[in-house]
This record gives sequence, C-alpha cells and structure tokens, in this order.
Amino acid sequence: MTHDPNCIFCRIVKGELPAKRIHEDDEFIVFPDIHPAAPVHLLMVPKEHFATLADAQAKHEELLGRMLLLAPRLAREQGATNGYRVVINNGPDGGQEVYHLHVHVLGGARPWKRL
Amino acid sequence: MTHDPNCIFCRIVKGELPAKRIHEDDEFIVFPDIHPAAPVHLLMVPKEHFATLADAQAKHEELLGRMLLLAPRLAREQGATNGYRVVINNGPDGGQEVYHLHVHVLGGARPWKRL
Repeated sequence: MTHDPNCIFCRIVKGELPAKRIHEDDEFIVFPDIHPAAPVHLLMVPKEHFATLADAQAKHEELLGRMLLLAPRLAREQGATNGYRVVINNGPDGGQEVYHLHVHVLGGARPWKRL
Repeated sequence: MTHDPNCIFCRIVKGELPAKRIHEDDEFIVFPDIHPAAPVHLLMVPKEHFATLADAQAKHEELLGRMLLLAPRLAREQGATNGYRVVINNGPDGGQEVYHLHVHVLGGARPWKRL
C-alpha cells in the first residue's frame, strides 16, 4: 500500500499524528474534521495514498462504493439525524486542500460554513 | 428495476422528459443540471430509483464506485480542466431537492453558486 511520508493524512493513517477514529477497517479510517464546517463534519480517508478521484484505479471501485454506503450510518451516529451532504473535492477549482483523497460528510442543522 | 412514476429523474431515465445525455450505460445516465451552480454542473443518476445513500443496498456498491471513478473524465470532457467537486445531498439538512439519488459534479472557474 502506497504512503507519502509528507502527507498529513498518511501520517494520521500510520498513527504518527493523532485523530479520533470513529471507524477503521482494512481500507479506510474516519475521523472528525479539525476545522468543522457543519455541526457534524467527518472525513473518510483511504489508507492508501492517492491524490484525487482521477488518480483512483478500477481496483478502488469497491472501496469508493463502500465509503459511500457507510456514510449515512456514521452521519446518523454522530448526530446528523435530518440529512447530510457527501463531498469530494478534487483539484484547485474543486477546493481540495489535502491531496490525499478524502470524503467529507457534513450534517446537522444549517447554516453551515462554506467548504 | 424499481421506478417511481412521479419521480422526475425516473421520467428522464425512461425518456418521458428530455435531457442531454452525455453518458449512458446499463446502470446510470449523466446529463447537465438544468439550474447549473457552476460552469460545469453534471448530474449522475442511477436508472434504479432509490431516494438517498441510506436507501442504497450492498448490491449498489459497485454502481456507486463506478460513478465516482467516471466523474473526473466527464468533468474534464465538459471543460472542468482545473478541478471539480463531487456532491451527494441526502435529506433536508443535506439540501436534497429530488429524492432519487444523484451525484452532482461541479467544476470550472469559481465562484460557484451555493448548492
């Protein structure tokens, strides 16, 4: 599995930086965003390093689908009982800040900050 | 495959309402949002009717992953050459307007309208 020693999310995956893991399995971890834009703001982060969806390969199809299927349960468990938004930012115009693919899950009563 | 005769996206899938299909396969179609919030604004819509990610089942894992894998190519082909955002709204707090699961793909130079 590819890691980037300079990537903040790879360092969290490896336990070199702290995060409150609310889910972990063989392929991804989930933890709260340190700068939440909504009452519930989770980040779902693959353990393998790849930058954007354009860098994902066919072998990642199941991982991507699995993350989307898990998002509603995690959102609800964290308190987003009336809906949530799933966001994947890719590249400069997409507003991506960390170039390790991640899925934002935002929920709770609006208004939210803009991502 | 389940359809809802009162669902606007089911009616587009069945060809009862018009849309400019820029992609179609056995499982989903892609067309421009009629009220674009960004220079590029596509909707990826499964042919099967289900309302939200919470209504998706394990059998939809591959479909969901496949839509995410295709998003970057479609975004680029439609002119989003410097990044794009993938968004799935679920429920009232998520800002969902049509209760047939759909993936927004937004790109092109900012600022964009808020979803």
